[in-house]
Amino acid sequence: MADFDLLKELIVPGTSKIVLLVMDGLGGIPREPNGPTELEQARTPHLDRLASEGSLGLIVPVRPGITPGSGPAHLALFGYDPVTHQIGRGVLESLGIGFDLQPGDVAARGNFCTVDDEGRIVDRRAGRIPTEKSVTLCDKLRAIALPGVEVFVESVKDYRFCLILRGEGLDSRIEDTDPQRKAAPLPARAIVPEAEPTAALINEWIGKAREILKNERPANMLTLRGVASDPGLPRFPDVYGLRSACVAVYPMYRGVSRLVGMDVIEFDGESPADEFETVKSFWDTYDFFFVHVKPTDSRGEDGDFEGKAKVIESVDAALPGLLALKPDVLIVTGDHSTPSVLKVHSWHPVPLLLWAPGMTRRDAAHSFGETECLKGSLGIFAATDLMPLALAHAGRLQKFGA
Amino acid sequence: MADFDLLKELIVPGTSKIVLLVMDGLGGIPREPNGPTELEQARTPHLDRLASEGSLGLIVPVRPGITPGSGPAHLALFGYDPVTHQIGRGVLESLGIGFDLQPGDVAARGNFCTVDDEGRIVDRRAGRIPTEKSVTLCDKLRAIALPGVEVFVESVKDYRFCLILRGEGLDSRIEDTDPQRKAAPLPARAIVPEAEPTAALINEWIGKAREILKNERPANMLTLRGVASDPGLPRFPDVYGLRSACVAVYPMYRGVSRLVGMDVIEFDGESPADEFETVKSFWDTYDFFFVHVKPTDSRGEDGDFEGKAKVIESVDAALPGLLALKPDVLIVTGDHSTPSVLKVHSWHPVPLLLWAPGMTRRDAAHSFGETECLKGSLGIFAATDLMPLALAHAGRLQKFGA
Repeated sequence: MADFDLLKELIVPGTSKIVLLVMDGLGGIPREPNGPTELEQARTPHLDRLASEGSLGLIVPVRPGITPGSGPAHLALFGYDPVTHQIGRGVLESLGIGFDLQPGDVAARGNFCTVDDEGRIVDRRAGRIPTEKSVTLCDKLRAIALPGVEVFVESVKDYRFCLILRGEGLDSRIEDTDPQRKAAPLPARAIVPEAEPTAALINEWIGKAREILKNERPANMLTLRGVASDPGLPRFPDVYGLRSACVAVYPMYRGVSRLVGMDVIEFDGESPADEFETVKSFWDTYDFFFVHVKPTDSRGEDGDFEGKAKVIESVDAALPGLLALKPDVLIVTGDHSTPSVLKVHSWHPVPLLLWAPGMTRRDAAHSFGETECLKGSLGIFAATDLMPLALAHAGRLQKFGA
Repeated sequence: MADFDLLKELIVPGTSKIVLLVMDGLGGIPREPNGPTELEQARTPHLDRLASEGSLGLIVPVRPGITPGSGPAHLALFGYDPVTHQIGRGVLESLGIGFDLQPGDVAARGNFCTVDDEGRIVDRRAGRIPTEKSVTLCDKLRAIALPGVEVFVESVKDYRFCLILRGEGLDSRIEDTDPQRKAAPLPARAIVPEAEPTAALINEWIGKAREILKNERPANMLTLRGVASDPGLPRFPDVYGLRSACVAVYPMYRGVSRLVGMDVIEFDGESPADEFETVKSFWDTYDFFFVHVKPTDSRGEDGDFEGKAKVIESVDAALPGLLALKPDVLIVTGDHSTPSVLKVHSWHPVPLLLWAPGMTRRDAAHSFGETECLKGSLGIFAATDLMPLALAHAGRLQKFGA
């Protein structure tokens, strides 16, 4: 984990600009022994030029051998040890939709689902009902009141929503109600005695929700998962002395950025070019931009090797728009690997490119890819060490000791 | 150290098979500047093919610059930080001969020695008396009774034996009695006051043993070293969710395996081929096999460069027998380096080959050797991180966090 106390003593103000461009699930493995990965196959002239001019390396997201989810992987990139700081999905999802989560709030991620006449779940996603339908259902659920707490029900996307309770003495240590099989949803169960009253409130809410939904089709029931509270992390802008902004399309990544105290920018469009245009619009307002590209991960999870390579190519093609802003430090990496041959996240270290004109050594690497990164001057290192390196290359850390 | 708590949450059951093949003291250094090491000189077509297909790296056994003994080096391979978990030789030796050491037992390694008329040690190994002689002497020593404790005397090999005390309130924090020079054996001295009663018992035993041995030749006295108790380590099969077996010839390695809760397989023969045949016989019974090859280390300690290379070649030649079993993950490495030019263990990182079809990236390495390992995609890493990597490549860890 980045040593926040040490950094605090060393950070100096500056006007330099840092861009952290994250292609989700960027790392891959070859389709056949000794073949190229998706990144190595992609034609990326701009990234290759940056690789030749800058420094390469590989980052280990959490620990060797550990495959991270998106939340932990991003926390690590931001310098927070994700093993120490475990954040529940309810928190990430609520923050992701822009809900103003307060300390002490208890948030759960909800799924609308379909149950049969015996109450057993037959479709965990209620036929993936459209977002508009979910919005209507959430409106109805807002009628439910609970004693002594405020209740918020917010639609997310498709069949997903958030339930947030606000009040004194709530405790989020409560198990998921999704049985993960064809069975009735479980009651909310407290993991520790202190969470019993909160569990009771949630069960009262579920009971009333069941009544409201019972005649709906196909979304006639719901499950709750990832019950959690904001852990109150040290704020990223304070820790690093950077006015910091998130440019991301997906709620999850906006959520984790808000959790660490970044401003989350609203913008139209969702292509890399749209994102880079957004960075341009706010160039003077912030010192640090986290730009998130999702489809690399999505194509990886689809098992679409060529598709993932094409997404990388589309980012490369849009890159001149970002480079025209002349960032002092540009980092291009992923939060984790999603090899399309595995169709899931993996533990493999993630290729990293750090470009900072006049500030880096040459290395033997001349294009951006996993194998070239092994020749990089940055070596293989923990993702949580990335932000100090970014600050250093941006001239924002003074000497430690005399 | 591997994060056992984290792993516990992530381990999923599986049918995959992991083989950890350890050539003791595998790492070497060249005889002349820029020459090959023993491993690089050895003709190893099978290992080279695996290297080309798999991933290479180097492991640091304990800490940079620290030369480990065999016990700590193996604990590290198994994921236990050997600095945190220091195990006395008495424990390792007792476990190694199959003695059923219990929690609370105090075990010491004994050496028969020769003393002159003034009681000074003139041969620390009593002319390396044969094992049969040692067995006879141990039988005689079993006649010694001590108040309030059970006493076990077990022969090991040649001039070596184990003394084990069993009873309430014993404390193993006691110094060695070997003076390491031409002098009389030292009395057993307690390092902490709590160990005074145990030291007194041991000294009573030594006094009676002196009487029994005084007319023997050449083994007319003994010394005790490495007084220790089983530290009660977390059990390897539980920590990693693997039914785990040790296939090793030497007591020491069987001992450390038993210490962490592996099953120790009895088998005939002692060649690599015999060991691989044993793995085959138990292939369905276990998920993890630790296979230990000793002579690489022995030839290294002899200063026999060619001999060490030949041992490596003999392992390579037998390897098809192991590969025919189609392990999902095969790791080939050493516990530490024993460069034959140094004739002792050393601190140099140990070459590592991880072969897991379809799960690894290409790297620029195409044969198995120290220099090629520098090009490997696994980099240089702590030995204690090996087991999580093995589990990951075997598909036995689920994603951490959402």
